[in-house]
Amino acid sequence: MKAAVLRDQKFYVESVTTPVPGAGQVLVKVRACGICGSDLHFFKHSAHILAMAKKLGAPTADMERGLKEGLILGHEFVGEVVALGEGAGTSVSIGDRVCSMPFVLKEAGPALMGSTPETPGAYAEYMVLSEALCLKVDPSIPDEAAALTEPLGIAVHAINKAAMQPGDVAVIVGCGTIGLAITAVLKIRGIQTIIASDLSPRRRALATTMGATDVVNGKETSPVSRASEIAPGAKMVIFENTGAPGMLGRIINEAPQNAKIVVSGIAPGDESFIPMVAIMKELQISFIIYYTMEEFAEALTLVSGTQLNWRPLITASVGLELVNDAFKALEDPEKHAKILIDPRKTGGL
Amino acid sequence: MKAAVLRDQKFYVESVTTPVPGAGQVLVKVRACGICGSDLHFFKHSAHILAMAKKLGAPTADMERGLKEGLILGHEFVGEVVALGEGAGTSVSIGDRVCSMPFVLKEAGPALMGSTPETPGAYAEYMVLSEALCLKVDPSIPDEAAALTEPLGIAVHAINKAAMQPGDVAVIVGCGTIGLAITAVLKIRGIQTIIASDLSPRRRALATTMGATDVVNGKETSPVSRASEIAPGAKMVIFENTGAPGMLGRIINEAPQNAKIVVSGIAPGDESFIPMVAIMKELQISFIIYYTMEEFAEALTLVSGTQLNWRPLITASVGLELVNDAFKALEDPEKHAKILIDPRKTGGL
Repeated sequence: MKAAVLRDQKFYVESVTTPVPGAGQVLVKVRACGICGSDLHFFKHSAHILAMAKKLGAPTADMERGLKEGLILGHEFVGEVVALGEGAGTSVSIGDRVCSMPFVLKEAGPALMGSTPETPGAYAEYMVLSEALCLKVDPSIPDEAAALTEPLGIAVHAINKAAMQPGDVAVIVGCGTIGLAITAVLKIRGIQTIIASDLSPRRRALATTMGATDVVNGKETSPVSRASEIAPGAKMVIFENTGAPGMLGRIINEAPQNAKIVVSGIAPGDESFIPMVAIMKELQISFIIYYTMEEFAEALTLVSGTQLNWRPLITASVGLELVNDAFKALEDPEKHAKILIDPRKTGGL
Repeated sequence: MKAAVLRDQKFYVESVTTPVPGAGQVLVKVRACGICGSDLHFFKHSAHILAMAKKLGAPTADMERGLKEGLILGHEFVGEVVALGEGAGTSVSIGDRVCSMPFVLKEAGPALMGSTPETPGAYAEYMVLSEALCLKVDPSIPDEAAALTEPLGIAVHAINKAAMQPGDVAVIVGCGTIGLAITAVLKIRGIQTIIASDLSPRRRALATTMGATDVVNGKETSPVSRASEIAPGAKMVIFENTGAPGMLGRIINEAPQNAKIVVSGIAPGDESFIPMVAIMKELQISFIIYYTMEEFAEALTLVSGTQLNWRPLITASVGLELVNDAFKALEDPEKHAKILIDPRKTGGL
């Protein structure tokens, strides 16, 4: 099969062995896979991430080998079941479209797709999934929507972590896919005041489309100050999705009393802040990365329904040969939001 | 009346005007007041705190004036009601012993005792309290126990913030009054595994007395690693009470998946950490400083009961003229834990 293999900070479309589904696994033909912000982050900062993991004493041998031999990324996917491994086929059948949390179940525990050569992701024509983690996608749901289940799952998780109440105010710092997805889910959950900030006019417009009640250019206006003006005294939940250096410290300084900060943005290095400020204001900071099985299923329900207007999030769909170009294109927030990879096609940008 | 007035990093016993209770206020004769870790912190770092507040744009005029004119600290107190202001006397009467959250209610909001010359604290013979915040102390409860209500309130609040479940594991980093109080309350709440760490053998012995199931010298053994060994896979709540530079970053690096960190220790300056580590482990960090009225009342119930062995926490009771010596003595954790000030007496060290 063909796959986009990441090696030396470049993707190469190569012929690789089509994986064979093991016991409890299914083989799927990939129909769509989103390019995630964490893929972009890994693409840019893999050397730094590796150095930091080593410094912290984490096991890095598999990742190092992957960076040398080549990795197949891709964890926001939908595919069609085309073969069943031993004992598989109890909950899904050949021909079903499925999505899944991006893990393959192994004896040692769930292994993250795309993190090692042994657990390839969806930037490829085929991939194997653990049947136990598969969710069937109803025929009425377009591939594009199903491929958004994963980032929507993070949004559901982020909002659940904050345990928001109806009168609370939300601040969305950074309107990439996660910021926009959080905005959309907050709107469905009935949050009345959603202030979104981004440096890009296009992203701010998208935030408004997804449900933000007010948008600001973070360079000119602090969204936290704006939210305090609009709803003085309201409980504030601030979603930091940028990972921009210094952003968390700035949010801690600006946050009002008892604010909750939910951090999904991955800053590349160390960050510093003043704990006394956080203590005086009794801030709570929740760092998030995944979701529960229930939250993932809820996300699929959301993209399947009519309440969530997911179409504006997707700005292109490209073949495997354009992955490098898509990564490049995503550097300009004026042009693109979510780009999907469809290994069945060519072109698209 | 006599008061210990803080000026130029020294306490001076001076004759000051006895305060007059205003509307809704009562005058109390102070019977005991604990020296709080935050008093020690303020004593040492007031110039730095002021500089930081200025940098953050917080209003500092009152604090600056206080540092120049002199401040009367003291917010862990019990006193006897000796006079009633206009309209006061509905819930407390002359002769009642009371404690209170350390705020005076003002039109602009609650004002913290000890923070300005207009809201003096309990390092004095008399002080005024807002009747609405007063809790009556039963005659059966010794002054020493009642004076511990405030730090116990912080412990109750810290534990509530962590929303611990019976099978969770607690790690107590730093066994000052707050660490020891948290240990004691966790024991009463039925937490089975409590690992406490402190550099001082005396403090570790006190932690065992208060209910720690295991103690370590943090310089030799990480209490987080020890807890992971004893209860692998258990949900961990880590209480950081030291404020030692670098400690929070170290805890973030060592914490297991999904750990909660509750920070009461006030680090003097900036702290840095690696957000990616916190994200990968989905850590939650809650910064705390006060408690609710209900938590304060629960703390009074705890010191009034027989379950909480509060006596070992108190190591001395001194007159106002020994406040400087008491502050000095508290630098040695081998000698003292909580020192109370009793403005009615002289000597005591």
